Amino acid sequence: MRIKLSYPTLRRLPRYLRQAETLLSEARTHVSSKELAESLGFTPSQVRQDFAALKEVCGVAADGLQGYGYRVDSLKANMERILKLTEQKICVLVGVGNLALALAHNFDFIRCGIRLDAAFDVLPEKIGTILRTLEGEVLIRDVAELPDYCALQRPRAAILTCPPDVAQDTADILTLSGVQGIWNLTNVDIRVPEGVALENVHLSDSLMTLSCRIDV
Amino acid sequence: MRIKLSYPTLRRLPRYLRQAETLLSEARTHVSSKELAESLGFTPSQVRQDFAALKEVCGVAADGLQGYGYRVDSLKANMERILKLTEQKICVLVGVGNLALALAHNFDFIRCGIRLDAAFDVLPEKIGTILRTLEGEVLIRDVAELPDYCALQRPRAAILTCPPDVAQDTADILTLSGVQGIWNLTNVDIRVPEGVALENVHLSDSLMTLSCRIDV
Repeated sequence: MRIKLSYPTLRRLPRYLRQAETLLSEARTHVSSKELAESLGFTPSQVRQDFAALKEVCGVAADGLQGYGYRVDSLKANMERILKLTEQKICVLVGVGNLALALAHNFDFIRCGIRLDAAFDVLPEKIGTILRTLEGEVLIRDVAELPDYCALQRPRAAILTCPPDVAQDTADILTLSGVQGIWNLTNVDIRVPEGVALENVHLSDSLMTLSCRIDV
Repeated sequence: MRIKLSYPTLRRLPRYLRQAETLLSEARTHVSSKELAESLGFTPSQVRQDFAALKEVCGVAADGLQGYGYRVDSLKANMERILKLTEQKICVLVGVGNLALALAHNFDFIRCGIRLDAAFDVLPEKIGTILRTLEGEVLIRDVAELPDYCALQRPRAAILTCPPDVAQDTADILTLSGVQGIWNLTNVDIRVPEGVALENVHLSDSLMTLSCRIDV
């Protein structure tokens, strides 16, 4: 299933999911689009439009019952289905520095539909050692083996945690090898060919927003 | 200056800034709201509304000239001013694990209006050592000293990179000490008192969005 939803709508789905999980943890069964909008900082009409688009494109969104709002459990299940979180995509990680270690040790990739299969680095002292993850262990390989590995194993996604100056070259190798999506944590913008999904994590955006809300 | 802009507008300002910097690097002088919208995935009317709100609230946004669009240099300068990026807010970091090391070594806090002044951890082998940052060096102190340090030095902001299970307690100590903003990187949601700014970094949102765009 190729999703044809607009990117801004897509980007809001994980937040609906998170809100549904919070509501479920509070034993709530229904939620109105007005309340969803308020807690997420969207407009109620944006929520209704998103759900209408989901229904149109994917056939599901969340069951709404006039006056009762959406069912929280179906909201959660449908978001997980539309986000394809239960379909494990094989993924490689390139650059085993501190950020990669922090992610591997703490981040729930499986929850995001991602299965980390291999890690790559340039440092001889890292190559051949094990990267511990929440799910188990991953072998750290020589980055020189990346093209061959990709040709053989056909990973669908890649996590980019390498130094900024080699980010673009690494992305080129990955997309040439058929990787369909790159999670870019290098703090520099990279270009990918048409049809490859790219998510840049710009940590500075949220820190700038915070900065603005603080009096000196 | 207390900014009274809506949070969704505020959240878009770093992205306008980033786009202005990209355009400047391409030697562009003007940009239309239509082009800004397209490159950022906003609607043109949203861009115009944001700039109208900025003008209303802060007296500045970006100089627009009918037919030529906004001036890129003033767009950049005004975004920096509204985001208060040149006013350095003193900040502490709590929890010197891998994520904190990755940030300290690579992240440009000063660019975000934040000056890292001290770091705290519980591990005896870390306490008393130096955390290297892009700007220089920061002493790692015993987290038991955090309340006294805050009372004396009055940091305005805090970066939370501690383990999830102590995130809320740490946030409580910080806000009781008068910290006005918390950048929460612990991957768990925390509560802060009214009036305290909170930015949760939810890395899973972007990875889920990526996951959804990849075929298995």
